[in-house]
Amino acid sequence: MAPKKINLAEKLGAFSDHWNPRIVGTYNGNEVRVAKVSGEFVWHSHTETDELFLVLSGELTMHFRDRTEILKPGEFIVVPRGTEHKPAATGECQMMVMDAEGTSNTGEVKDANLTRATLEKI
Amino acid sequence: MAPKKINLAEKLGAFSDHWNPRIVGTYNGNEVRVAKVSGEFVWHSHTETDELFLVLSGELTMHFRDRTEILKPGEFIVVPRGTEHKPAATGECQMMVMDAEGTSNTGEVKDANLTRATLEKI
Repeated sequence: MAPKKINLAEKLGAFSDHWNPRIVGTYNGNEVRVAKVSGEFVWHSHTETDELFLVLSGELTMHFRDRTEILKPGEFIVVPRGTEHKPAATGECQMMVMDAEGTSNTGEVKDANLTRATLEKI
Repeated sequence: MAPKKINLAEKLGAFSDHWNPRIVGTYNGNEVRVAKVSGEFVWHSHTETDELFLVLSGELTMHFRDRTEILKPGEFIVVPRGTEHKPAATGECQMMVMDAEGTSNTGEVKDANLTRATLEKI
């Protein structure tokens, strides 16, 4: 069976909450996710997966312990596994994110308000 | 060391030839590639990797044996390993592509004009 295309804006239009990624596809054992973010996230790292962030709208600030990167639409960054990072955004930022299948959005950190043990597929 | 962001348009501006992807990043054993395409490619499949196509500009026609999908900017498709497909574009289409590291752009097919046994990193 041939696969179907996915429209990122359409998927992003299906929800409005922040820091709650949705799964919109799978690729080589990884999940293609979309997320809306605003404000500050928590410092965390992922021991079992690199993490790719591609900004679609707005601006993403990615803090590292030794530097900060600011991403605009059409820019991506791959955070290597084990690298501490803290995403943040002034205003709303919409992005595509990739992580290994089944991995949490807060990595090794458990946060009652932010950790999504499982993610919704939309 | 913290990673650096990649600007897709900047990378795409560094070359002009068609059907010759460049590697612009790595993620979980996969290559993030950018490509400019125009016209018809060849029917092929990849036995060892899924392939993700995200359209950035123009329009990508993805032929499958049983159906055709037309992708516009902001739309992606994941072609599962082993699935025959033939990309095509009327006019130029720019896209981000992901494949397992070291895999050829023509998969199992060898074509003197199209196959890139190794890809340039830019």
